[in-house]
Amino acid sequence: MGEFELISRFFDRGPARRSELGVGDDCAILRAQAPGTTLAVATDMLVAGRHFLASADPASVGHKALAVNLSDLAAMGARPLAFTLALALPDADERWLEGFSAGMFALADQHDCELIGGDTTRGPLNVCITVLGELPVGAALRRDRAEPGDDLWVSGELGGAALAVRLGEAALPAERARLDRPQPRVALGLALRHLARAAIDVSDGLVGDLGHVCERSRVGAEVQWPAVPLAPGLAQSAAQDRPALALAGGDDYELLFSAAPENRSSIEALAGPLGLRLSRIGRIVPGQGVRVLDERGRPMAAGLHAYDHFA
Amino acid sequence: MGEFELISRFFDRGPARRSELGVGDDCAILRAQAPGTTLAVATDMLVAGRHFLASADPASVGHKALAVNLSDLAAMGARPLAFTLALALPDADERWLEGFSAGMFALADQHDCELIGGDTTRGPLNVCITVLGELPVGAALRRDRAEPGDDLWVSGELGGAALAVRLGEAALPAERARLDRPQPRVALGLALRHLARAAIDVSDGLVGDLGHVCERSRVGAEVQWPAVPLAPGLAQSAAQDRPALALAGGDDYELLFSAAPENRSSIEALAGPLGLRLSRIGRIVPGQGVRVLDERGRPMAAGLHAYDHFA
Repeated sequence: MGEFELISRFFDRGPARRSELGVGDDCAILRAQAPGTTLAVATDMLVAGRHFLASADPASVGHKALAVNLSDLAAMGARPLAFTLALALPDADERWLEGFSAGMFALADQHDCELIGGDTTRGPLNVCITVLGELPVGAALRRDRAEPGDDLWVSGELGGAALAVRLGEAALPAERARLDRPQPRVALGLALRHLARAAIDVSDGLVGDLGHVCERSRVGAEVQWPAVPLAPGLAQSAAQDRPALALAGGDDYELLFSAAPENRSSIEALAGPLGLRLSRIGRIVPGQGVRVLDERGRPMAAGLHAYDHFA
Repeated sequence: MGEFELISRFFDRGPARRSELGVGDDCAILRAQAPGTTLAVATDMLVAGRHFLASADPASVGHKALAVNLSDLAAMGARPLAFTLALALPDADERWLEGFSAGMFALADQHDCELIGGDTTRGPLNVCITVLGELPVGAALRRDRAEPGDDLWVSGELGGAALAVRLGEAALPAERARLDRPQPRVALGLALRHLARAAIDVSDGLVGDLGHVCERSRVGAEVQWPAVPLAPGLAQSAAQDRPALALAGGDDYELLFSAAPENRSSIEALAGPLGLRLSRIGRIVPGQGVRVLDERGRPMAAGLHAYDHFA
């Protein structure tokens, strides 16, 4: 199977629907934008042996490679539009490609996000996706917009993916799904456009990602540990390092956002329709840095660092 | 050096100039587009050991990774706007990163193309760039627009990069530069918007890339071998496989385009101002397939295939 047959069999789904020109030319071309809108752009690269095992279910790899990018759009309040895929493969393994493309396209279709182009080459397994989303001008949920007095919210539950990594083969299906098939919170991001001030997706762990928001916004934050929503398996676990797994485990792909207290009831009202838990876990304060407080309001031990590929 | 220091030292050049929001948030945000324009998008992935040697000059790697993407924009007639960079590195080698980013940014500045975001991770050396360019609606130089009777043109000279690969250490500096530092023909692409019909950049070899144009446009093509512009080293070489190097060597990054014969003099007039040779090498004909004809008009031997990563 040559490069062009590979593309045509697994990645070319015919004429572009949402774009002017899709797979098969030097560039893809987007439709002209609606007035008053602009484009959000994110890129994530997943490497075999680091972000997933080479032996991982290819459908999960396809799902996750797109999901982590859609999660970036969600954290910006952007609506998914289109994406490009660059793929380095050790060989043209048809079964792997079938699973990978099926997993990727299932999630793409769910979010009406179109593959418009890319690149395939031989090399150590590497998946790089760039996603494009639409956003009204000025509506972005930026990291640098948090203000002292804001409530701090997080969607869903934390620590499930980290627990799955910890447990390995012993992980329950729900925990594995959190790790292998994260659900990008796109609908929540869209709903938050006029309710939240700052937002970020929790990919490196809550404390680390909240630290980025604080740094960029020049504020501090206080998190109430008892208010942090734990993944079911973690809530029931007796592990001493539950805080580390929930607050610094990473791979959660939930949205962490700050919002003015007057928006509390509007935000709470989103949970039902979205079928998503929304927890108020603390607040933005003057100063700098992230403090996590236990049941009695005492600062918990430090050492909850964000994941760093090069540290 | 951690991931964030790495980004801040080598890839964050301060607030975005041409974009609304650049490096450092979940997504980058482009400026709202001018009415009547749209976006062209291309992605190319370069893998160490395949597209370049791991020991290659990092500045050349940075240059080339962006150049091959800008070449895609050029082939569409799009003006470079912004790009994202995803980088997998075996380790955070400061000297490598310094050279790489210097080579990349020098070319980016030359084309006023802004780095707006990306991703860094540990892994086998891999560089993936996605470039965004601006294009008036309907002005794209698509592959499927060639018509019988069109002249066939190519910019610059062919075969220099292939010769450099062949000669290895013995290659002359000019040939090495063709391989290591290809110059994307962005200005030519812009000038051809109203003069050319179909265009493609020659990355896999002229015959193979012309084959893509023919297939998409449902036409055939005749190339006059004596009219094909050869890289200086190749023109002087006695190598029996000069046609293979010039027509199927790849890595040329010249523009191949078709245009109506009435545009001949306008196209010829571009060469001077652009400082770029423009050669009329054949024509588009009814039917299908690419035929290369020698000095006496006889078809030359077949076997001039495009480079294929998986064949």
